[in-house]
Amino acid sequence: MTDGASARVFPVAAGAGDYDVVVEVGGLSRLPDLLAERVGAHRYAVISDDRVAELHGAAVAEDLRGAGLDARLFPFPAGEVNKNRTWWARLTDQLLDEGFGRDAAVVAMGGGVTTDLGGFVAATFMRGIPVVQMPTSDLAMIDASVGGKTGVDVAHGKNLVGAFHPPALVLADPAVLETLPLAERVQGLVEAFKHGAVLDGPYFDLLAARLPALLGAEPRAAAEAVARSVELKAGVVAEDEREAGLRQILNFGHTLGHALEAASDFRVAHGTAVAVGMLMEAALGERLGVTAEGTRRRIADGIAGLRLPPLPQLDIPRILSFLSADKKARGGRPRYVLLTELGAADPAERWSREVEESLVRSVLEDELS
Amino acid sequence: MTDGASARVFPVAAGAGDYDVVVEVGGLSRLPDLLAERVGAHRYAVISDDRVAELHGAAVAEDLRGAGLDARLFPFPAGEVNKNRTWWARLTDQLLDEGFGRDAAVVAMGGGVTTDLGGFVAATFMRGIPVVQMPTSDLAMIDASVGGKTGVDVAHGKNLVGAFHPPALVLADPAVLETLPLAERVQGLVEAFKHGAVLDGPYFDLLAARLPALLGAEPRAAAEAVARSVELKAGVVAEDEREAGLRQILNFGHTLGHALEAASDFRVAHGTAVAVGMLMEAALGERLGVTAEGTRRRIADGIAGLRLPPLPQLDIPRILSFLSADKKARGGRPRYVLLTELGAADPAERWSREVEESLVRSVLEDELS
Repeated sequence: MTDGASARVFPVAAGAGDYDVVVEVGGLSRLPDLLAERVGAHRYAVISDDRVAELHGAAVAEDLRGAGLDARLFPFPAGEVNKNRTWWARLTDQLLDEGFGRDAAVVAMGGGVTTDLGGFVAATFMRGIPVVQMPTSDLAMIDASVGGKTGVDVAHGKNLVGAFHPPALVLADPAVLETLPLAERVQGLVEAFKHGAVLDGPYFDLLAARLPALLGAEPRAAAEAVARSVELKAGVVAEDEREAGLRQILNFGHTLGHALEAASDFRVAHGTAVAVGMLMEAALGERLGVTAEGTRRRIADGIAGLRLPPLPQLDIPRILSFLSADKKARGGRPRYVLLTELGAADPAERWSREVEESLVRSVLEDELS
Repeated sequence: MTDGASARVFPVAAGAGDYDVVVEVGGLSRLPDLLAERVGAHRYAVISDDRVAELHGAAVAEDLRGAGLDARLFPFPAGEVNKNRTWWARLTDQLLDEGFGRDAAVVAMGGGVTTDLGGFVAATFMRGIPVVQMPTSDLAMIDASVGGKTGVDVAHGKNLVGAFHPPALVLADPAVLETLPLAERVQGLVEAFKHGAVLDGPYFDLLAARLPALLGAEPRAAAEAVARSVELKAGVVAEDEREAGLRQILNFGHTLGHALEAASDFRVAHGTAVAVGMLMEAALGERLGVTAEGTRRRIADGIAGLRLPPLPQLDIPRILSFLSADKKARGGRPRYVLLTELGAADPAERWSREVEESLVRSVLEDELS
């Protein structure tokens, strides 16, 4: 592969075939070469939301055509509300209308909504065509584009319909993060802190130290964080693609985070909810004697610079009811990933465990007061 | 495994995990044990069309409950017209309404419509839960339930949306074939003849010899044919799950068959169309000097006893236009699997090749006159 000088390439082992995550400032300009070398499809469907289409997607499709590739842009309206079966079906039908076949590939360019939706279109188009993931937000670069999860939301909840469909290639160009609103950058960095919290304490501390550069979207700082998070996540996914064991540690902060999000009727953003979820689940671990004392405090100090908005008033019984409906609950009982200390998840009970509801209630009361 | 005395078990190697196809007269009664031993889900969703639900599905769900398993029947209206995204979404939402989660499994019981639709619900429910395929027609036992193909039809064509989702287990009980109308039995046997034509000449001849018993749904004869077809198909699928090479041979008769079906606006049944497609593709191979002379004649003699209905008047230019829109066409040019002789497909050009349209037209003119 003709990598640019600054490219970092992380191989990810996946059941359906290995793939590379390329992290490179300015890498966007090499997309035509990368597709020709590594995908070799007959046609490319560039899927972007209308905002990203205007910023990047239309130019990318034009670039591909300029390089002699057959490419066409398929925009959809921006927003999580459109990550649904209706737009999945519409995009699929648009590809069919344009005569796309089994020899085509999808290029999903955008945030997590686009990588999930575009990935699910690719996963189910004629029983699966390749997808190239081009994340354009911190969150998508750090998290959504690695691991092969694709899907859409339904009335019963987020991501309840979908498929595992590992990408043919992921290309993350941190230079595009400059166009991202600060609030979205903050949301994405929460997941980077989470990677540090469960796997790499020094990385957690490094993120805290680099926060001003990261919030300013300084490309080298962003590239460093994206690269380390991708490396950590790739290692976990290679070991447990289907979330039967180790991969669950990536759900740290998410059991309570999802319930907080749902109980706020999704007024609380995902990253904000996960950040509070991490504090709560650290507190839970400390109360149980599983997590080293002071861990909750270290997490709180580390993420303080993100200046996350405070939570609105939330109803504790409602949070508890969402907990028992959690996708990862077994037999209606939610499971929690606990840390042993900052940088290490507890492997006991195959990486996640049930916790007495009274203790969860008590932590909720403390943390929400 | 506690197999019944007459059970034949065929292991199938699949990328996402191996599975067994159990062929057993009376095997239906062992389903509760098989599920408990081999699937171990927390809950079971039995998906059947309303006709099969009445004949078998409701009793099966009742049996499972009687054995202490948590099972519920989810019927949908019978017919290929309901193998669509609407019913896929409805069944998914019904499972969610009933609180089914990641620890559930689908039991898809019925013909190919049900194994495809129920399989696709399972493939995409929370990114994939296990599916147990319980084929109840010759066609589904012989063909649809082995190989992991799932999906639905859309306006642009059949099976254009779907996923590869290998089952956890396939249980084929030939005793249930007695309730199948003769016309459907005939359709399914065409695929058995196809297995013989591409892989096993003596099996082709055996089917022709046993035709009276097979058409009478004599359970031992049916079990023998299902077992041999499953064995042949399992061998092919193990070698090439994703249809990149060898698996294409199973499309013998299907390139022209699909086009005939479409050009008749689906008035011609699939099996009938494939039977004629096999004759045409054998003739094509003979004209090209690839297929031994007399092969078309041997196929015609073998399937004569099926007494397939004659084709209606079909428009040749319309057939040719459907050929170039075929899902397996590359760059708009359809590909054909050719035999070298009865019982062997030609491996040249990775098992399928393009053929001059003028020659295809000439064969169509001969065969349709």
